[in-house]
Amino acid sequence: MITTDQALEIILKKAKRLEPVSVPLIESLGKVLAEDIVSGDDIPPFANSAMDGYAVVASDTKDASEDTPVELEVLEDQPAGTVATQAVRKGTAIRIMTGAPLPDGADAVVQVENTISGKDQRVRHGFVKILKPVRATNNVREAGEDVKRGEIVLTVGTLLGPAALGLLASLGHPHVKVFRPARIAIITTGDELLEIDQPLQPGKIRNSNAYSLYAQVEQTGAVPVKAGISVDTKEALARILKTALGDADIIMTTGGVSVGDYDLVKDVLDLLGAKLEFWRVAQKPGKPFGFWTYEGKSIFGLPGNPVATMVCFEEYVRPAARKMMGYDLLFRPEVEATTTNDIKKKPGRIHFIRVIVEKNDNVYTVSSTGPQGSGILKSMVLANGLALIPADIEFVQAGGKVKAHLIDQPEDH
Amino acid sequence: MITTDQALEIILKKAKRLEPVSVPLIESLGKVLAEDIVSGDDIPPFANSAMDGYAVVASDTKDASEDTPVELEVLEDQPAGTVATQAVRKGTAIRIMTGAPLPDGADAVVQVENTISGKDQRVRHGFVKILKPVRATNNVREAGEDVKRGEIVLTVGTLLGPAALGLLASLGHPHVKVFRPARIAIITTGDELLEIDQPLQPGKIRNSNAYSLYAQVEQTGAVPVKAGISVDTKEALARILKTALGDADIIMTTGGVSVGDYDLVKDVLDLLGAKLEFWRVAQKPGKPFGFWTYEGKSIFGLPGNPVATMVCFEEYVRPAARKMMGYDLLFRPEVEATTTNDIKKKPGRIHFIRVIVEKNDNVYTVSSTGPQGSGILKSMVLANGLALIPADIEFVQAGGKVKAHLIDQPEDH
Repeated sequence: MITTDQALEIILKKAKRLEPVSVPLIESLGKVLAEDIVSGDDIPPFANSAMDGYAVVASDTKDASEDTPVELEVLEDQPAGTVATQAVRKGTAIRIMTGAPLPDGADAVVQVENTISGKDQRVRHGFVKILKPVRATNNVREAGEDVKRGEIVLTVGTLLGPAALGLLASLGHPHVKVFRPARIAIITTGDELLEIDQPLQPGKIRNSNAYSLYAQVEQTGAVPVKAGISVDTKEALARILKTALGDADIIMTTGGVSVGDYDLVKDVLDLLGAKLEFWRVAQKPGKPFGFWTYEGKSIFGLPGNPVATMVCFEEYVRPAARKMMGYDLLFRPEVEATTTNDIKKKPGRIHFIRVIVEKNDNVYTVSSTGPQGSGILKSMVLANGLALIPADIEFVQAGGKVKAHLIDQPEDH
Repeated sequence: MITTDQALEIILKKAKRLEPVSVPLIESLGKVLAEDIVSGDDIPPFANSAMDGYAVVASDTKDASEDTPVELEVLEDQPAGTVATQAVRKGTAIRIMTGAPLPDGADAVVQVENTISGKDQRVRHGFVKILKPVRATNNVREAGEDVKRGEIVLTVGTLLGPAALGLLASLGHPHVKVFRPARIAIITTGDELLEIDQPLQPGKIRNSNAYSLYAQVEQTGAVPVKAGISVDTKEALARILKTALGDADIIMTTGGVSVGDYDLVKDVLDLLGAKLEFWRVAQKPGKPFGFWTYEGKSIFGLPGNPVATMVCFEEYVRPAARKMMGYDLLFRPEVEATTTNDIKKKPGRIHFIRVIVEKNDNVYTVSSTGPQGSGILKSMVLANGLALIPADIEFVQAGGKVKAHLIDQPEDH
């Protein structure tokens, strides 16, 4: 039996970053960039107006006021997306829209609210009155203000969020290279498992692990592969494992890893030539957890109990998958918290207690979600944290300090 | 011009919860439950073994030890998923696997590690030696230990995570009712917009807002509807708006909402009969932001500047969409933080400063991501927070306190 730290170290050592793949920009959301992005353009590509108004020579406006407006001749009207056909020179202006390229000769824009146009009877047709002075560069966005051509704008390892997608779009990248999302196969084992639309029968239970794991894989940003239910024969399990090994980067089995006669996972993986890295971890829940490797793939033999399965996914599979997918930060935030209830346990194994974590005035508290049997999924439904009680500790009094993993918080904060 | 608080109040008042829809269980992940779930079964449905071992009458084992093992006759071998054909009585045991129903007559399970079986030459064939005593209920999971039949296990409004999906699976719910995800149409406007695979041309820019908004909608758990680019004519915009109003719960336009001649959004929405709720908010970026309603739908006229668009989505559209989708908590965490740099601004509007939020020893600091022009998307790529500088404040010195919204943190913590 090894410690949780030893188990995690072995697992992460075996988790190798997956190869880069090119995906349509919109599918890159939440993934990790696998190439440096060098801008081929200035962004914005040209000096343009930050306002709707009039492009002018700033020095023309220096004496403008409500009482002494400056009158300029309007040479033309230039919507966004078009280029002026003339240059602005002293005594003239060009009507301009937000985003439109600044015409030659102009060095500032007077916003429309500070003008009276020829539509007003106080102003001659074809002219505009300027009511407020502007200085050079006022209301102008310079070319390259956001990004300069040749600049490295995003580097390998960047987590791609909505703003990064917008930036890549503006630079003309309809496709982008990201580290390939891990494919994670889910195999549930046991003659007692029914599909979830089946009525219960004596001795049978519904296959809930397939659903909780599928959801955990999705929330990790990986690709769940439904490999199916295996009955408790070596032939059936070997067949389903072989298919999964051909199709996924990570293979998870649930059940069949303790010492019972029907615990076939170990035997079948032996037969297939997988290398046992460890079996059994000093933790509760999840003691009979085993880990194998086979041709660069990671195989997690998870326990069959619903809570143990979910806790092992959270503590081991998720960090491994994140490493494969190129994420920099692998672990949920860990905080120190005050327990609101006594915690009593036997020595020898770390316990992962399902807790509700609350934060008040920057102080964290944790409260047990109730009975902690490893079959009691309700304890996990309510939990937003796992409190860690070290192997050698037998008792923590209410008010004492414990460490907790915040399992509803992103790793990337 | 109204305040940001007034704008948010109006927007949220108009956001009505969408109707419940039934979805396949796996698609309910991350959504909000729209029905109470009453358990039709006990979970587990029968008392079962928590270990691989031997089902026994506990009192038979009370004197068992390594030196004085108790020998019991093994009546049969009962895998998980099967029911024993006989009852355990004093002097006998049934070989049992984890999860298998506890046979009649048995009241405890001795785990296999504390036995020597008939496979060992020290034990007669057909018998088992018990090396450690057990008490009644030891290693037995009681029927209904997790959930009792008739119990309300999940209530309307529950955010469905992986554990809830597992619980629903175990209770036999292949479908579940959730509040319908909002459909959010994205319309970008402007003659200057190019598709992102087009080379730049004089006066043109690529349509980045469609991508950043699409990503923001996805991250909100809503359904993005690509309504397309509208050129700057009333006819084109009216056509695209009408289609979007027929197909989405929320319609967003970008650009075309300031006072320029080509700012058509206001005129066209008037013509279509939409009700203007407000136009212009005392904020930077995003002053020319407008909001309309039409037959229960919410129409957000977002500014065209990339950063302004993203900030308005974050501060207004996302909370409104969350309310429609039944989420209880609508807002990102707000923290008080120390600014590491001076912040200078004009009075009159709230400024949303893009910042990097860091937390050390439970103290938050915020640092500006650099130049804050509303076209500078780079400032948003780096940001994990928005610092709020109130309208009447002109200067915050480095070391001063500001409020910040943590835009990479979930609302539901």
